[in-house]
Amino acid sequence: MVDELEQDLQIRNKNVQEAMRELNMDGCLLSVDVHLYYLTGRVFNGYYYLPAEGAPVCFVKRPNTLSGKHIMPIQKPEQMADYFRSEGIPFPGRLLLETDEITYNECVRLQQVFLRPAIGNTTTLMRRMREIKTPQEINQLRLSARHHATAYAHIASCYRPGMTDLDFQIEIERIMRLNGSIGVFQVFGSNMNIFMGSVLAGSNAEAASPFDFALGGQGLSSFCPIGANGTLLKEGMAVMVDMAGNFTSYLTDMTRVFAVGQLPALAYRAHQVSLDIQAEIKQVARPGFPCAELYQLALDRVEKEGLKDYFMGTVQQAKFIGHGIGLQINELPIISSRSPEVLLPNMAFALEPKFVIPAVGAVGIENSFLVTETGIEQLTVFEEDIIPLA
Amino acid sequence: MVDELEQDLQIRNKNVQEAMRELNMDGCLLSVDVHLYYLTGRVFNGYYYLPAEGAPVCFVKRPNTLSGKHIMPIQKPEQMADYFRSEGIPFPGRLLLETDEITYNECVRLQQVFLRPAIGNTTTLMRRMREIKTPQEINQLRLSARHHATAYAHIASCYRPGMTDLDFQIEIERIMRLNGSIGVFQVFGSNMNIFMGSVLAGSNAEAASPFDFALGGQGLSSFCPIGANGTLLKEGMAVMVDMAGNFTSYLTDMTRVFAVGQLPALAYRAHQVSLDIQAEIKQVARPGFPCAELYQLALDRVEKEGLKDYFMGTVQQAKFIGHGIGLQINELPIISSRSPEVLLPNMAFALEPKFVIPAVGAVGIENSFLVTETGIEQLTVFEEDIIPLA
Repeated sequence: MVDELEQDLQIRNKNVQEAMRELNMDGCLLSVDVHLYYLTGRVFNGYYYLPAEGAPVCFVKRPNTLSGKHIMPIQKPEQMADYFRSEGIPFPGRLLLETDEITYNECVRLQQVFLRPAIGNTTTLMRRMREIKTPQEINQLRLSARHHATAYAHIASCYRPGMTDLDFQIEIERIMRLNGSIGVFQVFGSNMNIFMGSVLAGSNAEAASPFDFALGGQGLSSFCPIGANGTLLKEGMAVMVDMAGNFTSYLTDMTRVFAVGQLPALAYRAHQVSLDIQAEIKQVARPGFPCAELYQLALDRVEKEGLKDYFMGTVQQAKFIGHGIGLQINELPIISSRSPEVLLPNMAFALEPKFVIPAVGAVGIENSFLVTETGIEQLTVFEEDIIPLA
Repeated sequence: MVDELEQDLQIRNKNVQEAMRELNMDGCLLSVDVHLYYLTGRVFNGYYYLPAEGAPVCFVKRPNTLSGKHIMPIQKPEQMADYFRSEGIPFPGRLLLETDEITYNECVRLQQVFLRPAIGNTTTLMRRMREIKTPQEINQLRLSARHHATAYAHIASCYRPGMTDLDFQIEIERIMRLNGSIGVFQVFGSNMNIFMGSVLAGSNAEAASPFDFALGGQGLSSFCPIGANGTLLKEGMAVMVDMAGNFTSYLTDMTRVFAVGQLPALAYRAHQVSLDIQAEIKQVARPGFPCAELYQLALDRVEKEGLKDYFMGTVQQAKFIGHGIGLQINELPIISSRSPEVLLPNMAFALEPKFVIPAVGAVGIENSFLVTETGIEQLTVFEEDIIPLA
C-alpha cells in the first residue's frame, strides 16, 4: 500500500515537473491541503517547493514531528529564502503560485520572499494534472465507491414514519460514518459549506441555494442555506439522498431517491428519463467524446420528453449535469454546454441528471464513473429505481 | 426575532461605516460568507458593497430568488462597475477588500473592476468589529451554549464497552445533531478541516497535528490529520470530548473529560489544576484585563505545580489557552503570551487550559465566556469534574 502510494507520488511529481517545463516555469510553491496531499501524501501546515528539475523541499510550520531529507522546519515563509541562499539554490525567476486559492496577502508576501519573480497560476495547472487519475487514486476511488454503495444499502432501514428530512439525514450520517466516512469533504471554491451532503424532500427541493451544487434546498439556517430544512416526510414525497462518499481521501458521489408511499406518475416518468439519459451516456461516452455533447444529449432527451421546466431544478436550474471527482467534490471536467473538454482515460466524474417535481421532491440518479480506454465504468453500483420507504 | 436581528444589523453596519470613516476609507466590498451574514443576515454568492456613508448594495450571483431595494443581480463582478456608472455612484478611491481571505486572482480582478483604487484590508477590520458582540449575537451565543450543555448531558450514555474513540464520537455526533447542531462549523484560515470536533483518548492525545487547534490527534487519515484515530477505549484512559457547539450560527466551545475506569492520580491532579486556573481567571477577568496576563497567570500556576511538560500537549504544545468565539471558532481575542489585547465588554471567548498525560489521554476543561461590564459570565454550564464511563 505504501509502495503503491510512493510509486504514485513519483509519477505525480514527475508529471507536474514536465508540465512546468512545458510552461517554461522554474518551480511551484504549494500550500493548499489537497495539493500537498496530492504530491507528498500528507497534509501539513507549510509549503512544498517543487522545482521544474531536481528535488523538492517541504517547508513545515506544523506539525513539529516531521523530519527527513527534504523537510525543513520553518516558522515563517521568509525562512524559505534563507534556506535557498544557504543551500545555493537559485531563486525561481518564474514561479507558479496557487493564485486561485491562496489569499491576496499571502500571495503578495510569497512574491516578496522570492524577490518578486514572474508568477503564474498553479491552481489551474494542479487542477488539470489532478483531472487524470493515477493508479493509486483509481484504487482509492474504487474503494470509496464500494463503501458508498454498502452504506446506501442501509438507508431505507433508517426511515421511521413521522421523521423529518433532518431526522432521516442524521441517521444516514451515522450510517455513513459507521461505514468509514471521514466526514469532512473538500470543495474547490469558497462559500460552499455543506455538511456531509443533502437530503431533499417535498417542496424544499425547489428552494434556490446560493451554493453552486446541482440542487438546492433551504437548509436549517440562513447561515447554511442548502439541503434539508426540517420538512416532515409525508405520503407522496420523494426523498433524494445525495451524501458525499469520502470513505477514503477520494470522494465518490452517488444519489438515490426514496419514496414515502406512492408518488405521482410524473415523478416516476422523470426518474426513468434520468435512468435513460445515464444509459445513453454509458453507451456513447469514451475517450475523445466532448463533455459538452454529453450535456447536449441529455438536454435533447429532456426536451423531447417535455420535462425541461423540471430539469436540474425549477426556480433555479443548474447548468451542468456532471463534474469531476477526486480529492475535491467539484474537480474537472465539468459536464455542461460550455465545457471545452473531451473525455480522456482515467478521468473520474459524477453524472447526475435530476428533476425537481413541484410539491413532490427531486428524482433522478447520480453515479460515479471512471473513463477507461474504451468507454466508462460505473464505480457506484446499487439499486437505481425509486426505493420505497416502508 | 426578525426585528431584533434587523436592529442588530443596523448597529453592525453603522459600526463598520464609522470605522471606515476613521480609517479614511470610502467603502468596503465583502464576499466571504461570515461577513455577508454578519452585515446582511444571509449568506449569498456575490458581493456586499458598504460605502463609508450612505446605503449599501447587494450584488447577487446566486440564488436568483433574492430581490429588494438594494439587491442587484449580477453574473460577474464587472457588472458592479456598470451599476455604479448607471446610478452615478462615484467609484471608491480607497477601498477595503478581504485581502486575508479572498484569493489573489479575485482581489486583482476586483481592483481592476474599480479602476485600481488604493486598497486596505477589511479582513482585519471585520475581525475587530466582530470581536465585540452585539445584543442579538449574545442571545444566539447563549442559545448555542444551552443546547451545547444539553447535548453534553447525553454523552456518557453513548458509551459502550469495546468502543473505539471513533465509535464513541459517531454516537456523540448524532446526539449533537439531534439537539440541533447545524454541523458545518466555520474556521478562519485554511487547512483546518476538522469534522464537528475532536474526541481524544490514550496516547493519541499526544499526536502532533498540522492544524492550529489546542490539541492534536492523529486523525483517521493523513488527509485529515486531527482527532480520533480508532483507539480502543480501555480501562485507565481519559477521553476528552471537544465538539463544536454550532446550535445557532454562533459557535460555543466546550470540553469535558470522561474516564474509562480509574485514571492515574496525575490525571486527576492535572484536571484539578485546569479547574483551579479557570476559577482564578473567573475571579480576575474583567474589562481592561490584558489577555496576555490571563495566559501568564495560567502558566505561573502550571509551573508552580510542575506540570509544564504536559500543558497544552507534550510533543507539540499549543501557545494559547483561549480564543474568541462567534461565527467562527477562532475569532479574536487570542489568549496567549503575545496577545496585545485587553478584555472588553461583550467579547466572547473560550478558555481551555488542558494537559496531556502520556498513555492516559487529555484532561482539563473548556468553557465559553462572555465579558460583562464587571467580570466574565460562563455560558456553558455543565458538570466539570472527570465523568466516569460505566
